[in-house]
Amino acid sequence: MGINEKTLALGSKRSIIREIFEYSKTRAAEIGAENVFDFSLGNPSVPAPKVVNDTIKELLDSESSLLLHGYTSAQGDANVRRAIAENLAERTLCEVDPNFIYMTCGAAASLSICLKAVIEPENEDECIVFAPFFTEYRVFIENAGGKVVVSKPRESDLQIDVADFKSRITEKTKCVIINSPNNPSGVVYNFETVQAVCDVLARKSMEYGKDIYLIADEPYRELIYSGVELPCLWHYYKNTFICYSYSKSLSLPGERIGYIAVCDEMNDAQRVYLSVCGAGRSLGYVCAPSLFQQVIARCQGAKVDIEIYRENRDLLYNNLTEYGYDCVKPDGAFYLFVKALEADAYAFYEKAKAHEILVVPCDDFGVKGYVRIAYCVDKSRIERALPAFKALAEEYGK
Amino acid sequence: MGINEKTLALGSKRSIIREIFEYSKTRAAEIGAENVFDFSLGNPSVPAPKVVNDTIKELLDSESSLLLHGYTSAQGDANVRRAIAENLAERTLCEVDPNFIYMTCGAAASLSICLKAVIEPENEDECIVFAPFFTEYRVFIENAGGKVVVSKPRESDLQIDVADFKSRITEKTKCVIINSPNNPSGVVYNFETVQAVCDVLARKSMEYGKDIYLIADEPYRELIYSGVELPCLWHYYKNTFICYSYSKSLSLPGERIGYIAVCDEMNDAQRVYLSVCGAGRSLGYVCAPSLFQQVIARCQGAKVDIEIYRENRDLLYNNLTEYGYDCVKPDGAFYLFVKALEADAYAFYEKAKAHEILVVPCDDFGVKGYVRIAYCVDKSRIERALPAFKALAEEYGK
Repeated sequence: MGINEKTLALGSKRSIIREIFEYSKTRAAEIGAENVFDFSLGNPSVPAPKVVNDTIKELLDSESSLLLHGYTSAQGDANVRRAIAENLAERTLCEVDPNFIYMTCGAAASLSICLKAVIEPENEDECIVFAPFFTEYRVFIENAGGKVVVSKPRESDLQIDVADFKSRITEKTKCVIINSPNNPSGVVYNFETVQAVCDVLARKSMEYGKDIYLIADEPYRELIYSGVELPCLWHYYKNTFICYSYSKSLSLPGERIGYIAVCDEMNDAQRVYLSVCGAGRSLGYVCAPSLFQQVIARCQGAKVDIEIYRENRDLLYNNLTEYGYDCVKPDGAFYLFVKALEADAYAFYEKAKAHEILVVPCDDFGVKGYVRIAYCVDKSRIERALPAFKALAEEYGK
Repeated sequence: MGINEKTLALGSKRSIIREIFEYSKTRAAEIGAENVFDFSLGNPSVPAPKVVNDTIKELLDSESSLLLHGYTSAQGDANVRRAIAENLAERTLCEVDPNFIYMTCGAAASLSICLKAVIEPENEDECIVFAPFFTEYRVFIENAGGKVVVSKPRESDLQIDVADFKSRITEKTKCVIINSPNNPSGVVYNFETVQAVCDVLARKSMEYGKDIYLIADEPYRELIYSGVELPCLWHYYKNTFICYSYSKSLSLPGERIGYIAVCDEMNDAQRVYLSVCGAGRSLGYVCAPSLFQQVIARCQGAKVDIEIYRENRDLLYNNLTEYGYDCVKPDGAFYLFVKALEADAYAFYEKAKAHEILVVPCDDFGVKGYVRIAYCVDKSRIERALPAFKALAEEYGK
């Protein structure tokens, strides 16, 4: 019919999450929303901190319309970038040069832009992702003209299997995406793993005489429990992009606001940053939303009440493991990555559905036999769902 | 060095508008901003209507944070799309199905997504643009894998030269971008021209046995003076996308909010719409900013006070033509497209600069020997600049 078959396929493919979303609405209409235990969506359930809306009102009252709603430069307002750099320095001990920050329309844009900026399609560049991984990585990598290479995790704790990772690197490897805390597993990669990954990258870059870029996808950076610490990756490896978004830390997923920070000690940092600017331009991004640039600059340091998520995690994790489910205790994000009680995650998903439990089968996330339970929901939903989870386990003889 | 050379080039190329922007700042510091007559930027100078900020405050007070700042579906909130369809029907007599609207992060995103959705890079598809044209079209078309083909205008009135257009269409033509009111000329294409363009498209589609798409870039639709009317293009041609943005009509350029409307009588409309959804996904757009989706839904029908722009146009046009400048009187947008007083537009730009007048030489816009004067500025700037324009004309013996 003469249109782009790839984008048609992307738009036509019914994603399982979307399918569950539709089913959930229909089912809620039939039996009441309170009786459907929907854990399928990674949509923050904790409201934005009060300071966000207060700041918006203050800005509307104090700033001119043209300044507030007008274009910023493509990289983002200079004062906003300075505020972010100052906060990053305090919070993560990352010394970022504001001139190497590029404001974006959220994490998906950040990733798409970084990938586009470094991947050379004509060279059949490869990008390594660590399973389990957010399924959209595949879309962004392929749009940039790259090939996805999946590195398998250690089954015991879902940390990176460094030996497996090492074996995946070839002369075509251009970049590696690391996502910690991880969607869908909630796992935070520990210091040893991160150090080992960075050592491998440094050695392989040397061996092949080329730069391999590390792209840190960190929208869940603030959602960490149990006192676990997340290192600043460019203390370990200079050729690193940090991709950040305020979607989870300030519960603003719809507002599409985030940034890319290019390590200023990266090789050829200035040229790489210019390539980021060019990639943003070519993808049709003019600037990040202007009002929310100002908002997040004034809300640096604020974050949502993560105790709510921690309570949910504990309630769900403690009970599910007691019922006989097998699951790595997540240190961050708001997901529980649970082994299906039979080999086929889809079959398990269907059986859970019969108990009104909606979870996401994760075969597309790069590991077979798991489901993702998003616990960014009202605690009461978890409480109501527990008997159903118990009955489901019993059905499997647990 | 192993990064994407194309995006590097895009990010590195100093655009003339950016260069003027930097010069203007430096010069203002030297001689005072009031003595620099900067007409280089297409940044709205009329504030957003009061209802915009009022609506934001109302929404903050009445809606929950999770609804207001949460993800919407990728196509955009269903109620927002309904509100737009209702207003479109009233305003333009275009009967749009809300299920064929796709909310975007502004006009650049709308265009990028439409182009990506239809262009098949493996077929070396071509996209025709009508000179003079907005320079970023080239970036978006090439990112989608297409080739830019420029159709030259009628010199007398800068309307489309239909014979020239016809001669540019080949079997590889996939789409045509039409931008009325036009950036940079301010010209509104008249009914006869539009009808003739659409007739050519219909005949050529038939001749080649393929669909050729018309992409209407209409961010300036509301900025029309002199009672000129802008037709709804799909009364003339069904295979049409309307790309719209609230950047100019509500003076919200930084907020990145707009939409694509796919004509529901387009051939294979449903599949084309799905391809639009897939293209948005592949470019890293998750949803259009959620708060501003709600804002524009409630501000349908509002628009900036365009009398301010009309007065600026008249003041500048009447005086410049009196001084001996040659220029088509623009019916819309906020640009005057003036013939340079010598063959080389860059040389003219430099001479204007010596009079502290900053205008954009337009060779990159597809016609040689013109400059663009953006009159979206305070009226007082025009008043102060008039003697300088006069002196400049006199230098050329006018």
